[in-house]
Amino acid sequence: MNSEHSEIAFELVVPYRMQVYFTRHAFAAKNTLLRKILAGPGDFSRRIKVLAYVDDNIPSTYVDRVPLYFDTASTGIVLTALHRLPGGEAIKNDQAVLTRIYNDVERHGICRHSYIIAIGGGALLDVVGYAAATAHRGLRHIRFPSTALAQGDAGVGVKNGINFRGKKNFLGTFKPPEAIINDFLLLSSLSRVELRNGYSEAIKVALIKDRTFFEWIEQKADALNAGDDDAVAHLVRRSAELHIDHIATSGDPFESGASRPLDFGHWAAHKLEQLSDFSVGHGEAVAIGLAIDIVYSRLTGHLTAATCERVLKLLETLQFPLTHEKLTSSDASGKRRVLEGLDEFREHLGGELTVTLIDNIGSALDVHIMAHETVVAAIDELLGRKRRTVV
Amino acid sequence: MNSEHSEIAFELVVPYRMQVYFTRHAFAAKNTLLRKILAGPGDFSRRIKVLAYVDDNIPSTYVDRVPLYFDTASTGIVLTALHRLPGGEAIKNDQAVLTRIYNDVERHGICRHSYIIAIGGGALLDVVGYAAATAHRGLRHIRFPSTALAQGDAGVGVKNGINFRGKKNFLGTFKPPEAIINDFLLLSSLSRVELRNGYSEAIKVALIKDRTFFEWIEQKADALNAGDDDAVAHLVRRSAELHIDHIATSGDPFESGASRPLDFGHWAAHKLEQLSDFSVGHGEAVAIGLAIDIVYSRLTGHLTAATCERVLKLLETLQFPLTHEKLTSSDASGKRRVLEGLDEFREHLGGELTVTLIDNIGSALDVHIMAHETVVAAIDELLGRKRRTVV
Repeated sequence: MNSEHSEIAFELVVPYRMQVYFTRHAFAAKNTLLRKILAGPGDFSRRIKVLAYVDDNIPSTYVDRVPLYFDTASTGIVLTALHRLPGGEAIKNDQAVLTRIYNDVERHGICRHSYIIAIGGGALLDVVGYAAATAHRGLRHIRFPSTALAQGDAGVGVKNGINFRGKKNFLGTFKPPEAIINDFLLLSSLSRVELRNGYSEAIKVALIKDRTFFEWIEQKADALNAGDDDAVAHLVRRSAELHIDHIATSGDPFESGASRPLDFGHWAAHKLEQLSDFSVGHGEAVAIGLAIDIVYSRLTGHLTAATCERVLKLLETLQFPLTHEKLTSSDASGKRRVLEGLDEFREHLGGELTVTLIDNIGSALDVHIMAHETVVAAIDELLGRKRRTVV
Repeated sequence: MNSEHSEIAFELVVPYRMQVYFTRHAFAAKNTLLRKILAGPGDFSRRIKVLAYVDDNIPSTYVDRVPLYFDTASTGIVLTALHRLPGGEAIKNDQAVLTRIYNDVERHGICRHSYIIAIGGGALLDVVGYAAATAHRGLRHIRFPSTALAQGDAGVGVKNGINFRGKKNFLGTFKPPEAIINDFLLLSSLSRVELRNGYSEAIKVALIKDRTFFEWIEQKADALNAGDDDAVAHLVRRSAELHIDHIATSGDPFESGASRPLDFGHWAAHKLEQLSDFSVGHGEAVAIGLAIDIVYSRLTGHLTAATCERVLKLLETLQFPLTHEKLTSSDASGKRRVLEGLDEFREHLGGELTVTLIDNIGSALDVHIMAHETVVAAIDELLGRKRRTVV
């Protein structure tokens, strides 16, 4: 048969240029950053349409500046429409939100050289990003992450996604936005509880990549608990840098391999969010997921007891819970439901199971087997610890 | 303000390896091609799941061999399920088909290292390809284009898509499949009318890129009209090569620029398909679209009358219609509705209008203005020509 075969093989190399900016007060009239990005390197010979989606959680004092900013921009740049959308994970379950964005793109004649801007938390960025990546096979897109979590992690990557039948990010694409603008002004309106949601991803990336950053977080724990502007800005910025650096230099930006060190602590976190009907936010879920995998790392001999305790202490100092009642719920056969998260994690990435643990602060380690009974032991140890703390 | 800005910029370079194979009898037990692709370079340590979708138009004699092929394959490769789907443009309008594929992926636990195989015409490949590109942010995908049109053009690219509110390919992504296998056996069951649907895209790509191929088609017109196996196989193969070569070497595989020479003749073709409720197939629509833009090229002084006539003659010799009654339908203001296709074409690609014409056989030319009255004159000239031919 082989004599009948022939083949044309080629490598497609697709370069994406992605820029992540840190600024303050992006929509102040004098702030030229967004105008320069929208205008691009070319001249102003063509009209640039912008369709904006803004999270309901963003204060109107911020949102009101957006149309004013475009009014004073070059005449070549037009804000076609600005729509508010609810924030939070629920919109990722709602097919109607996606359809509504597609309808807007169609009605306003948004083309592949127009821009969709999203200002909001991770969930809104995920949905709008998915719409922008699929309408007309990809519109130009600029993200303004509005939470500490989104600025430090969720909003500064190349992924988007929506849920399907309750499975988180079951649908999505890898599509780098043209630009990501982290406006520190957006953090000023957040409560300390909301700020804290960004701290667990920072601790995560410090644990796998940057011991110095971990020690900085330890030293600044009081300032972070107080919501100190400078401390929060530094944490967000360094967290974003480490996440971006991984995406850009790991050699696998679109995750074709099975190893996902940035998902350290996430197999349990994703499952806990689902088990709790998303009443546990991602930041807390990641803290709990980290605690489980840190104790598991110690129980399996990878991590010293002192280092394990040091990490748990930092999570506690930053007022994170380390466990949750849903972690003890079992299915009909008596198996802990959280363990389903391992299968779902393997299935989403594909291939064999690969879970990142650590063998020291700043040093990641991949394992391919997670012993169920040891995971349960880790969870129960944290539950006992919680009881002690409460009593 | 600028002192407050800082920036992290990086280039993501994402390499895709895409392979296009030509074979005959891909599911014969002895044909090792697909087995080798599925097994990949690695060993057989892991189980490889395959989920297959097959166009209802494929004869059961062909389809029945698919499960047999997997039965005799290595034990590491498992055909999880094979589902039939209707072929034709209608499935691209049906959200339920997409949802059904997502449900299958979820139910069968298809992961990012599993494969989705699609065997069918361009419409089925587009829908299954879109599902494969978005489920779990992208599953591995292998296409078996089953028509002359799909093997020579629609199936051998990097795009997928579905329609939204009647707009063709309003949703989609650029995502190269792992492999495309053109099985010439699939062409044997096609009628001559079905085969002919592949000829117009071959003529199109010859007109913009390869005069020698155009002359070959002229010489082989009788054999092509008779559905001669060797002639059809050569036409399909050369057409596929020219399309792939453009994608791989144009420097813009994901169409971020506005110039799309492979869409020569397509602005009118897409609109005619829509105006006729897709009763005009893509192959005929492209022939008519080419005829319009060829006459337009002559009327605007780019093409000699002799060359124009030579191209129209070839289309007629291959029994293509050169016009359609829907091309004369007008809106309330008296404007020909087909002209809306120019706006929609510009909007889909974005930026300024760019339409490819030719100034000789094998030589493309981009223009940025299409004079409406001259387009109408071209259409009316072809309408008169048709009347003459019929009388």
